[in-house]
This record gives sequence, C-alpha cells and structure tokens, in this order.
Amino acid sequence: MHLLFTSREGHNGRVNDMPPMPPPPERGFASDNFAGAHPDVMAAVAAANVGHAKAYGDDPWTAEAEARLRDLFGGQSQPFLVWNGTGANVMALATMLRPAEAVVCTDSAHIAVDEGGAPEFITGAKLISLSTPDGKLTPEHLRFVEHLQGNQHHVQPAVVSVTQGTEMGTLYSPDELAAICDAAHALGMFVHLDGARLANAVAALGRGPAGVRSFTTDAGVDVVSFGATKIGALGAEAVVYLSPGLAARARHVRKLTTQVSSKMRFIAAQFNSLLHDDLWLRLAGGANQMAAVLFEATHEIPGVQIERAPQINSMYPVLPAEVIRVLQDWSFFWDWDVSRRQVRWMTAWDTTEADIDRFAAGVRHVLVHK
Amino acid sequence: MHLLFTSREGHNGRVNDMPPMPPPPERGFASDNFAGAHPDVMAAVAAANVGHAKAYGDDPWTAEAEARLRDLFGGQSQPFLVWNGTGANVMALATMLRPAEAVVCTDSAHIAVDEGGAPEFITGAKLISLSTPDGKLTPEHLRFVEHLQGNQHHVQPAVVSVTQGTEMGTLYSPDELAAICDAAHALGMFVHLDGARLANAVAALGRGPAGVRSFTTDAGVDVVSFGATKIGALGAEAVVYLSPGLAARARHVRKLTTQVSSKMRFIAAQFNSLLHDDLWLRLAGGANQMAAVLFEATHEIPGVQIERAPQINSMYPVLPAEVIRVLQDWSFFWDWDVSRRQVRWMTAWDTTEADIDRFAAGVRHVLVHK
Amino acid sequence: MHLLFTSREGHNGRVNDMPPMPPPPERGFASDNFAGAHPDVMAAVAAANVGHAKAYGDDPWTAEAEARLRDLFGGQSQPFLVWNGTGANVMALATMLRPAEAVVCTDSAHIAVDEGGAPEFITGAKLISLSTPDGKLTPEHLRFVEHLQGNQHHVQPAVVSVTQGTEMGTLYSPDELAAICDAAHALGMFVHLDGARLANAVAALGRGPAGVRSFTTDAGVDVVSFGATKIGALGAEAVVYLSPGLAARARHVRKLTTQVSSKMRFIAAQFNSLLHDDLWLRLAGGANQMAAVLFEATHEIPGVQIERAPQINSMYPVLPAEVIRVLQDWSFFWDWDVSRRQVRWMTAWDTTEADIDRFAAGVRHVLVHK
Amino acid sequence: MHLLFTSREGHNGRVNDMPPMPPPPERGFASDNFAGAHPDVMAAVAAANVGHAKAYGDDPWTAEAEARLRDLFGGQSQPFLVWNGTGANVMALATMLRPAEAVVCTDSAHIAVDEGGAPEFITGAKLISLSTPDGKLTPEHLRFVEHLQGNQHHVQPAVVSVTQGTEMGTLYSPDELAAICDAAHALGMFVHLDGARLANAVAALGRGPAGVRSFTTDAGVDVVSFGATKIGALGAEAVVYLSPGLAARARHVRKLTTQVSSKMRFIAAQFNSLLHDDLWLRLAGGANQMAAVLFEATHEIPGVQIERAPQINSMYPVLPAEVIRVLQDWSFFWDWDVSRRQVRWMTAWDTTEADIDRFAAGVRHVLVHK
Repeated sequence: MHLLFTSREGHNGRVNDMPPMPPPPERGFASDNFAGAHPDVMAAVAAANVGHAKAYGDDPWTAEAEARLRDLFGGQSQPFLVWNGTGANVMALATMLRPAEAVVCTDSAHIAVDEGGAPEFITGAKLISLSTPDGKLTPEHLRFVEHLQGNQHHVQPAVVSVTQGTEMGTLYSPDELAAICDAAHALGMFVHLDGARLANAVAALGRGPAGVRSFTTDAGVDVVSFGATKIGALGAEAVVYLSPGLAARARHVRKLTTQVSSKMRFIAAQFNSLLHDDLWLRLAGGANQMAAVLFEATHEIPGVQIERAPQINSMYPVLPAEVIRVLQDWSFFWDWDVSRRQVRWMTAWDTTEADIDRFAAGVRHVLVHK
Repeated sequence: MHLLFTSREGHNGRVNDMPPMPPPPERGFASDNFAGAHPDVMAAVAAANVGHAKAYGDDPWTAEAEARLRDLFGGQSQPFLVWNGTGANVMALATMLRPAEAVVCTDSAHIAVDEGGAPEFITGAKLISLSTPDGKLTPEHLRFVEHLQGNQHHVQPAVVSVTQGTEMGTLYSPDELAAICDAAHALGMFVHLDGARLANAVAALGRGPAGVRSFTTDAGVDVVSFGATKIGALGAEAVVYLSPGLAARARHVRKLTTQVSSKMRFIAAQFNSLLHDDLWLRLAGGANQMAAVLFEATHEIPGVQIERAPQINSMYPVLPAEVIRVLQDWSFFWDWDVSRRQVRWMTAWDTTEADIDRFAAGVRHVLVHK
Repeated sequence: MHLLFTSREGHNGRVNDMPPMPPPPERGFASDNFAGAHPDVMAAVAAANVGHAKAYGDDPWTAEAEARLRDLFGGQSQPFLVWNGTGANVMALATMLRPAEAVVCTDSAHIAVDEGGAPEFITGAKLISLSTPDGKLTPEHLRFVEHLQGNQHHVQPAVVSVTQGTEMGTLYSPDELAAICDAAHALGMFVHLDGARLANAVAALGRGPAGVRSFTTDAGVDVVSFGATKIGALGAEAVVYLSPGLAARARHVRKLTTQVSSKMRFIAAQFNSLLHDDLWLRLAGGANQMAAVLFEATHEIPGVQIERAPQINSMYPVLPAEVIRVLQDWSFFWDWDVSRRQVRWMTAWDTTEADIDRFAAGVRHVLVHK
Repeated sequence: MHLLFTSREGHNGRVNDMPPMPPPPERGFASDNFAGAHPDVMAAVAAANVGHAKAYGDDPWTAEAEARLRDLFGGQSQPFLVWNGTGANVMALATMLRPAEAVVCTDSAHIAVDEGGAPEFITGAKLISLSTPDGKLTPEHLRFVEHLQGNQHHVQPAVVSVTQGTEMGTLYSPDELAAICDAAHALGMFVHLDGARLANAVAALGRGPAGVRSFTTDAGVDVVSFGATKIGALGAEAVVYLSPGLAARARHVRKLTTQVSSKMRFIAAQFNSLLHDDLWLRLAGGANQMAAVLFEATHEIPGVQIERAPQINSMYPVLPAEVIRVLQDWSFFWDWDVSRRQVRWMTAWDTTEADIDRFAAGVRHVLVHK
C-alpha cells in the first residue's frame, strides 16, 4: 500500500517521568495555512471596501489582479480568480478533460489524497496515481500511456498533473518539467501544475519573479493553479491558463465548480497586495529560509531522522513512536506516514527564529528524556 | 417560454435631444452584492488575523460562529460555513439527493437560472422548474409528484427547494412554508430553503431574530442556505441542517463541493460580527426600508409600472423600451425580462436616501424627456 | 404544470351492470415494445450463432451492419451499435456536450420524461424542456438561447434534441427539421434526433429508405439515435454520427455509458435482417397502416375523442373517466395525461386487423353500456 | 507500474524460415466471450418470441428468471436483469455509494482496468486500486481504511469490490471471502462481488449450484454481479442484492445506468435456459476442464512458462517475445502484460479437445522453429 493512504493521524506515545516541557513556540509547525494574512494583504482588502463595485469580477481590482498575473506568466496567459486550492484544481481539470479520460499524478498528489474525492466526483475522470518516492513524476512514468490510447476498454489518460513544490517538499527543475511537458504533449496530453506552493518554488529557484516562467510558461505547462493562501492571503487562488485554447470555457466552468465570488474585488485585492513589489516572493522565501534554519536546528538531535534538507518550507522527520504524540500535544504538527513514524514539520511566512528555538528545544527535551 | 430564460441583457434604447442627466447616485440599484462589507465585518476579520489557528474550521472563531448559528436556528441545528451561495446550495442538495432523484423549484429559482448548471452537474439530479408568477411554490405544485413515485421510467422528486425572500422579491408567510413542508414530507421529500436573502425575509417579518425559526425550524424546513454576503459580508454563507440526520455526511460533501476554506476563521469572523447585536437584521431591515422609499419615490412617475410594492429589497419595474438603456448607462441596473421591458431595482445595506433622491430624479428626467 | 409530469397511471373507473366484455384482442395496443421480434430477425440471430467471433464489434456481422447503416445515412456517417434507446440517447448527448452546457427539448421528450433522469445524471447537463402542444420544436423555440450565450451565470444551450416521429405521434417535415438545424447551427448548437420511431417516420414519408436522409443527413442533423427494437428487433439500437467530428470519441463514450456488447454480432444480426430488403420499412409501414385502421374503427364511437388522425403508429384518445380502467383491465394500454382523461393507443409491427376489430368492439361495448 | 496499465497489445515478433504452421483450431483461446450462445439458450429465446408481453420486466419470463435467481442465492435475495457486465457493476456500485465515497479493489479488477472509466464517471466515486500478485484482496488490504474514516480531506472507502473467479484466473475460498466481508462490515463498508465468471468459480468449487451461496450469501457479500454471457448467453447479466436494504432503489438506478431492456423477456429466457437443470454449471465446468487440459498440453513445451495451473478457465503464459505475434496471427489471443511477455489463454464453454490439440501443436511448432 502506498502513500496515498498513509494516515496523518494515529500515534499513542507516552513518555513517563519527563520534566515539564519548555514553553511551546508562539507559532507552530503544523502547516502554512495555520498562519493568518500578511498585514499588507489585510490592508489591501480594507482599502478595496469602498462603495459599490460591479459583482462577479467586473471591477477594477480584479482587472488589476488579472493584469498582474498576465505580466507574471506572460502575455498569452489568462488568469481566473477563485476561492481555494481544491476549487482551483478541480476547475482546471474540468476544462482539460473530456468523458472517458484520466489524469496521471503521483500518489502523494493533493488531488489524489487531500481533496475528498472532489476531482473524480466533479469531473468524472479517473485519477491514475503512481507511486513515487519523492512526489515527482518523470517522462518514464508516462510510458504506459501509449498502450492505452485508442483502446475502448481503457480510460484515456489526457492530463498529467504535477505539483511544484511537491507535497513531499521537493522541487522539479525547469528542465525536468519541460521534459514532462514534452513527453505529455507528444502523447497528446495536457499538463496541469498544482502550484499551491508555487511561490515557495519560485523563491527557491532564486531568479526573482521572472523565474516562474522557467518552469511554467517556458516549460510548456498548459494550466497552473496558483496559490496565494499559504503565503499570506486570507483565501485567494488563481487558475492561470497558459495555453489559450483551454481558457475558452473557463469562465463557465468556474461558475459550474462553485468558485465564482460575487464580491471578487476582495480576492483580487489580496493578489494585488502580494504581487506588489514582490511581497509574495519575500514571504515565500522567508518561509523557505526558516525551514532551512529548522532543519539545522533539529536534524542532528539524536532520534530525529530527516532524509533530505528541505527544498522549500517542509521536512518529513522520522521520530521514535513514543515521542510523537507528546510533541504534538505540546505544539501540534501532522503525522505523515504513521507506518513509518514519519511526521511533517512546515514553516510559514510568519515563522520566526524564536519559534524555531523554542520548538527545537522542545524536541530535544523530549528525546533526551524519553 | 418562461422566466427561466428571460434575458437580463438586451435593450437598445435611444433618447434624443435630452438635456444632460443629473448626477447619478453614489451607490446604484443593481444588486445588493455590488455593496462592500460593513465596517464592523471588516474590523472583525482584521481582529481574527492574530497568530496561528488550526485550519479547516478547527478554530475558536468557527466554533463561535457555529454556536451563534445554532442559537439562531435551534439546538438541533448543525451549521457548516462555506464560501458562496451557489456552493451552499449545491452542497445542501448533494447531501439530500440520491441517484435518480429530482429537485422541484420555481423557474425563477437561483439554482435553476443563475448557477450555470452547477446543481445538475455536481449532483446529477434533474431540476424540475415550475412556472410561477411570483417566485413562490404552493402545496398544489407538488400534486404531480405522487404520480411519478415508484415508476422506474421517471426521475423521483426528492427535494423541494424554495427561496425566502424569493428571487421575485416576494415572501412566504410562515404558514405557507409550513404547508409546503407538510406536503413535501407527506410525499417523503425533503425541503431546502435558499436563504441568500434570509436576513431580508426575517427583517420583513418584524419579529426580531427569533422570527427566523417561524419559517424554517418550526415550519419543518430540513436544510437552509443562509447568506451573509448580501447583507454586509465579504463572502460568507452557511449551510444549516435543521434535520440532524441529513448532516451526517455534510463535512465530507462540503469538501467534495470545493467549499472548505483552510483559513476558515476569516469566514467565521464575518458571521460573528453580523450575528452580534442583531447587526445582520439591522442591515437587512435597512435595505428593505430603502426599497420602500425607492418605491414611493418612483412608482408614480409616469411611464414607470411597478406591479407590487417591495416586500424585501427589490422591485421589478416595467419601463418604456427607449429609456432603459439610457438609465442603465447612467446608473447601472439589470434587465429582468427583456420581452416585457422589465428591469430589477435592488437596494443594499448601504443605500442612502440621497442615493434614492438622485436615482428618482434621473428616472423622472429621462421619462419627462423621452 | 405541463406534460412532463402528467401521469401515465391512475384512473379508478367502475362500470356497473355491464354485460360481459367480448374477447380481447390477441395483441393489445399498449406499446410497440410489447411485440416480440420478427421471425426473420430471430432467424438472423440464430444464424450468427456459429463458432467464435471477435468480441466488442470486431466481427463480420457488425461490419456488415455498420456498412448498411452508412449506406442508409450517407458515406460520411459513422454508426455505433448499442443495446437500447436510453443508452443511445445518453451516449449521443455525452459526445455532444461539454461542462456547463444544456440540451433544449420538448417537455414530452423521452429524454426529459422517460429516462429516469439518466441524461442529467450521466452527462451532467441541464435539460431545458419547453412546453409544446404537439411534441415539436420550431426555430422560434430557440430565440431565448442567444440571450444566455456567454453569460457565466447561465448554463449554455449547446444541443437541440428533437424526436422523429415524436412522442405525441406527430411528424416533422424535412423542411421543418432543416429549419431547426439551421437555427441551431447559427447559434453554434448541435442537433440530436431521437429516432426511436425513425422507421415509422420514414415509412410515413413514403419515399422509401432514401427518405431517411431528407430529414437527417440532408436537413443537417448531427447525430441520430436509430431504434430497431420497436419495429421487430429483440433489442438493437444505433447511434449514427452524421457530423464526423463528433464521432471521434464515440467508441470511448459508448464504453463509458455501459452500452458496448461483448457479443455484438447478435445486435448486428438484428440490423442486418431488418435492413435487408427494406424489412424495417415494411414493418414500420404496417404499424402505421394499422394505426390508421384503428383510428377509422374507433374515432367516431360516441365518447371517444381523438384530436388528430395518427401520423405514425399512435393516437391519444380522450375517454370518459369511468371506462378507462375497465378497458385497461380488459386489454391493457397506458394513460397519457390523467388530468385530461387522455390515454395512448399504439400499434406494432405485428398488429392485425382482427386485433383491431376485437379492440374496437370492446371499446364500443364499454361506451354503449357505461 | 502495475498491472493496471499493462498493455494487451503490442508485440512485433518475427520468426524467419519457419515451415508453414499447422491448421489453427476452429475455436481459439482469446476469450470466453468470443464464443456464441449455447443452442438451448438460443432455443429459449426463440421460444419466448410469442405474441405480446408487457415491457420492462413485467412479463412471465422475467418473473421466472427472478425466481430462479432467488432460489440460487437465497430467499432474501433480489435479482435485477441487465444487459452486460460493465452495466451490472456500475449499477451495483451506484446503489452502494454516496457522495465522497470510494471503492477498494485490486489493480487488475475489471472495474479498474477494463470499463473505460465508467465506474468513476457514472458514480463519481474514486477507485482505490491496490496492487496484488494474484488478483485477490485480503482483510490486510483494508487496514488503511480506518485511518481515513471521518477525515474530511480524504475520500471515504465504502465498498470493497472483489472478483470471483478473479481476472488473474484465481479463486477465493469461501473462508477468504467471509474474512473480507467481516473486515469490510466491521469498517462499515459493503462488499460487491463481480461475478462475471461466477459460474466458473462455482463449478470449480465442486459443490453443485448450492456452492454459490458458500462464498456469496453465506460469506456476507452484499451485492453480486452475476454474468451469464461468458458461459453461453447472448448477452445477459444480473445484479443480485443479498442485503435487501440496498435493493430499495435498484430499479431506479438500473434505469439511470441505461441497463433496462424493454423486451426483457429475451434476457430472462437466457437465464431460464442456463439455470435449468444446471446447464450453467455444466458449461462453466466444461470450460474449466478444458483449461486443465490445455495446461497439461502446453506447460511443459520448452519456452512456455505458466506459473500456476488454472483454477478456472484461464492461464497466463510467459512466452519468448519473437513467437507471440506469430502465434497471435495464427490463432488470436490477447497480450496480458507486455513488459513481461505474458499473454492470456482462455477456454470457453464450447472449447473441444480437438481445438486444444491443434493449438498445442501450433505452439510447439513455433517454439521448435524459433
């Protein structure tokens, strides 16, 4: 059985006779969506709250956000603002799929594991989830597709969905994504990129905002789900079509997937704030940087095993079974793979070094006294 | 052809040689979702933006909002916060329907006309849209259902969906809704109430917040979509289950219909602000009151025909064809039924008497000079 | 409330003190699918039962049936054999629709009334059912479509579905269908023709088998559901694509809609028999002729009101309430519109004049003694 | 990559300078659905072709078939006749699933691999396909389920679907199936059994027709898809509900999944013939027996590797790459796993020893001369 169904709950650790824990960090390491909104984002939303504006996106804030996103992804791109990540992914896929088609993804993909079955339920497509150690697909993973094509008995793979940065905290290089896009297009398939943590990936790439195109537009990706929620928004995502033909019915499909906001200016204002003066990259880069600091502060603690230094803002330690629940009760984080005693630690845009100091102290405390 | 497909666009009026129009109102009469958020709502959202909170609703703000909604609808009720009205309706219906079932509604119902086909697409059910002059169903409308029940060739009507206040600006009395609920339950059907303008209906009833139960919980409604967006939220709705059995899988269905917010505290804060000290009712009542003022200011202008005084916050004037576009270009509002030259004027929580004075002056100006 | 939900059950007539009924007809007038298979069809199926043949349509019988259907509808046409009429219609629509689209039909259409909600459930589309007195659409019925197009809030009408002969026993002329096709295509819509009784329509046209093209291929219809079951098959239908582009994914969609037969030769053999030497037209023409005889034998019986002489093989008498159930108990037929005391009498390929004599005698007997 | 996407096409073998092949068998070893109908079945269909009968299952032949199936599976069971196996499976699952639920199966399951994505498309559920070497699930395979239950982010496994005999030619013992049923029920899940080759499994069990209950009704299976097509029918399957509650809406769901036949007597007659005097078991047992003979005749031919003697009517040889296409061109059979040079040989109810002699001679001929 693969990662798809590893639990993210379940330990029952007990550590007896341990001295009291030190104070927990003010901000924990459970998820980047435990963080709130950046003050600039909140200010932008408040500033958009003036008088009447046309509903459903026909307002100046939305026009500005769309222009900013077009600038980011290139002139052909067509952005559509939506509420949340599951909505962005389902909307994107629903515009890329026809009946009897399938989506190829990893078995740790958010669409496969964490969206409650919404992709299948709403699009009707099969998800073909391939097992990968690092959350990344390669062109090799698509070799099976050719054998299915044209066979009426088999569902027809039509979309490859990759995540950047991945759910395993890894990154594709621009070349790796270009190779997947080439392989997919050669098979007549489209490429969807789930960019719930796109900002962290761009920040990690270190080429400034222009870097985003290197692994999206220039690599040949067809549709991007671009997430702002995890890097300081209240709740704001965008589906960005890089292949213009696919956008033709996007407005209708957004409505169909319940993802149209009537007062869209308030989603747009969040993007406008984040995309202003590279705030999104500074916040994502900060989260990445804090993950590196956390790794340094913890990976040599005896009992902590972390396979890889973080490439973006998460790491996946393996811990002794008896300490996991104790630590979670003290400062919550999620299990990742219970069968391996693996957990996930994730930093956010607002993580501080003080938070890390406290957290590392707690980890060390528990492991010393277990 | 019935209202279902009356256009809301389309006039090409022209008024020659008219003196210049007076200044338009600061806030127009297009829709209550052209208005922004009430300052208290915005302040509450900002106040919730403190530190980390568990995601997906496991936070104190959501707990408070759920408690407030339970207080409002009664102890058995179970509320679930969502993003928007289409999402609320689709989620509600998806928990009430099984395969081969149908929803009975009016042909002016939002679910039938204004949700882009999302109810059918996501739930797979048929919508049976019945023609009504006033947007209201009666028990008589359900007489056909018995003949279909048990017949394998016919889809099985399983849900009645009513809207309160209706899309036609009318209201059901508590007795009328109780009668529909009784008729539906006698047929083994559930009742869904689309309360996108529930607040306006409660305000119009004049019994304070307790009045809401008279036509929901006490009348026998099973599930309510309760809208906050139109009365001063940024974007906040709730699906409230009054029949507890139907809520059993609601959390999963909310996820499935892409309506779960990761940073749910920001939706919750909007409800907490509006439900505090009856703000929601004061805002909705204000909108209703402004509609009455607008009706008084316009219905006797020669050329303006308004069949009914508004019961909530909208009216549906019939105007001479040649003035409609001129007025819309000056201060936008929507067409309602182009074939009858009928338009919709709607007030919002922030409409002022000054807005009405200016608007009425413009209407009079155009009609005098046409 | 319209025909969509008129019941086809429900009378409770009682006729006291009536002398015993005469003997009922051997074959009644309930439905053309109460008849069995023509002996030639049965013989052809038995003749196909020799040794092994490749499954799923890759056999000589299927190749022959496809060739015969291509000859009938023209060289560009592409036929696909399926099990039954609901399957044919759902498969056809599923290849013509994209998300957020709708089908326009009459409210007596089989897809709207008699397919248990399968079109909505499987395709996810809305059915827009328009009220018509005679089961026929006109170009006028499409006037509303233009107003919806491009509006994100409204489902997008994409297919017009007509039935020939209609569920009301009426016929479109080739010119009428061409006009609908022109109107639909001008709006960017496709046209589906439900030909569950196509054979009866072709026979009624009186131009031999070539007549079928006059109102399908030549009129501009895009996809036809062609039914053989009602004119002497065991169970055999075909979806015939006249617009080649739409057929590209038909094989996959047939599988998806559960309509692929593994031993397809046995469906094909039925078509081969019926299409040989115009058997299909002779059988359908016979049923039509018997309907004319039945009309002559009954329409002047006092108490029987039949609005129209039959154009194909059905008529819709209005009868005194108290005799309907008595007659149905004696020789079963279906109610059509209980509210009007309207029933349906339908002839089949095997109806004889002796059956009609007996049936007319029974009707007269009941009406004389009521 | 697992079996799910092994191709069943694709070799390009070439054997030069080989003497001419011996004559191929009259009936090949491609599939049991390449065989026609048993003469008794054909005779029963012809015998049912007498006069008129009520449509859609309200006829004596259907009543008899339902009674025979109830006798077979036990008095609580409720059978529904359908057209084909994909239809039976999709209908069964559609009555067992609610929104946001999933089906657990093997990655060689017909529903996962060979139904063109119909289960996902029509039911909206996710299929969780687990890798197994022998096509069989065990209670261990369900261990992951508990971790997902109640978690709103994860689809909820609600049905276990097993196949008996499996797509890999293996069999579950009654105890093994009872253990799976117990494990599933303990988790609140239902069990579906795909019995496309149920007859072969019952025959292999050797307890006569009563043996069927040992691994279905008595083991705790909730719903069975019972296939007659592969053991001598023209096209006839049944969905048999063993848990009565699940059948409540089956009639409507059968219609919804396009699986209702209007002239159902012709499906029923096939069952009546096969279930008479144990014909179904004799035919299935014969196919099993011929598979044993084929195994004996081929498994020791140098170059042929067959891992397991057949338990029912199929085996999965691994052959040298260069001979596969040559053999297929001579007497067609399907590839199974191209990556391993594995093919499938399958016997049918009409396979003869002469067929096997010829086939074995051809295999030996090719392998000697390669």
